[in-house]
Amino acid sequence: MDEHPPLHRALEPLAFLIGTWRGTGSGRYPKIEDFEYVEEARFWHYGRPVLAYSQRTWSPASGAPMHSEMGYWRPAGAGGVEVVLAHAFGIVEIQDGRVDGGRITLASKSLTSAPTANQVEALSRTFVVEGDVLTYEVHMAFGDHDLQPHLEARLERARE
Amino acid sequence: MDEHPPLHRALEPLAFLIGTWRGTGSGRYPKIEDFEYVEEARFWHYGRPVLAYSQRTWSPASGAPMHSEMGYWRPAGAGGVEVVLAHAFGIVEIQDGRVDGGRITLASKSLTSAPTANQVEALSRTFVVEGDVLTYEVHMAFGDHDLQPHLEARLERARE
Repeated sequence: MDEHPPLHRALEPLAFLIGTWRGTGSGRYPKIEDFEYVEEARFWHYGRPVLAYSQRTWSPASGAPMHSEMGYWRPAGAGGVEVVLAHAFGIVEIQDGRVDGGRITLASKSLTSAPTANQVEALSRTFVVEGDVLTYEVHMAFGDHDLQPHLEARLERARE
Repeated sequence: MDEHPPLHRALEPLAFLIGTWRGTGSGRYPKIEDFEYVEEARFWHYGRPVLAYSQRTWSPASGAPMHSEMGYWRPAGAGGVEVVLAHAFGIVEIQDGRVDGGRITLASKSLTSAPTANQVEALSRTFVVEGDVLTYEVHMAFGDHDLQPHLEARLERARE
C-alpha cells in the first residue's frame, strides 16, 4: 500500500481539482427558504486513473451537518469526464461532462433513489477553478420544477 | 462543525459497524484468475441519520491499488437498511437489505454504469460482525454468469 503514489497520467486533465477546498455557498429553490452553508470538498488520487471525491456541508449558524456526497471522477476520452456519485440523502447519480481547461460542465445521465429517498429529476453542474479558487453552480429539476439554479459556492484550496 | 457529534438514535441498529476495519480477502469468478487482496473499510457517522462508508483494496504482493467504493448506509424502517454506493470502476448501486443483530444481508436493487464502464448485473452481500471481527461475502452476476460467489473477506476492527 503506497499512500503517495504518483499521479496516473490519465488524471493530468483533472489534476487541478486535487486538494482540500473550503468555503461557503448558498441555495435556493421554489417552496423552500433560501439557505447558506459552509462546505469542505476534497479531491484525491490513490494510484488508479480516477479521482476520489467527497464533500460535506454545514449550517453556518449552528454547525449542524447538512448535505454530504462521495464518489469518483473518471477521465473518459479526450476532454471527457464521467462522475459516479452517492448522496447521503439516498440517491446515486451518473454524470457525464466535459473538461475545458479549468472549467468542467456536468449533467446527470441517471439519478436513482433508494426506496425511502426523494427522487431528483435532473442535476447539472459547472465547476470553475482559477488558481486556488473553485466556484461551482448546481441547477436542479425536482418535482414539477424545471432545471433551475439551486446552489452556488466559492471555495479556496487549503494550504496543507 | 462538530467533529464528534453524538450518534443519531436512528443509527443504533447499525452502530456495531462503526470503526476502521482491516484484513484480507479473496476473489474468484469465471474466466478470471483467483486473487487475494488487502482491505481497509471504514464506517463513520457525522450527526445525520446515516453511516458514511468507504473501502479500498490493494494487491498483497505489489501494494498496487485495486478496488475502491464509497457511499452511505441508511436505516430504513424497523430492521431495514438501504445503501447508496459509488464504485471507482464506474458504477453506482442501490442496495436494499435487512439487519438481524450483527448480520446484514443486502441485495442490489439497481446498478447503473457510467458510459465507459462495464455493466454488472447483480450483487448480493452478507456482512457478519462478531465483536471486533467483520466477515463478508459478495455474490455477483456479470455478463452471462448467474449470481455466484465472488468475494469473501475477514477484517478486524482497528484499535484507535
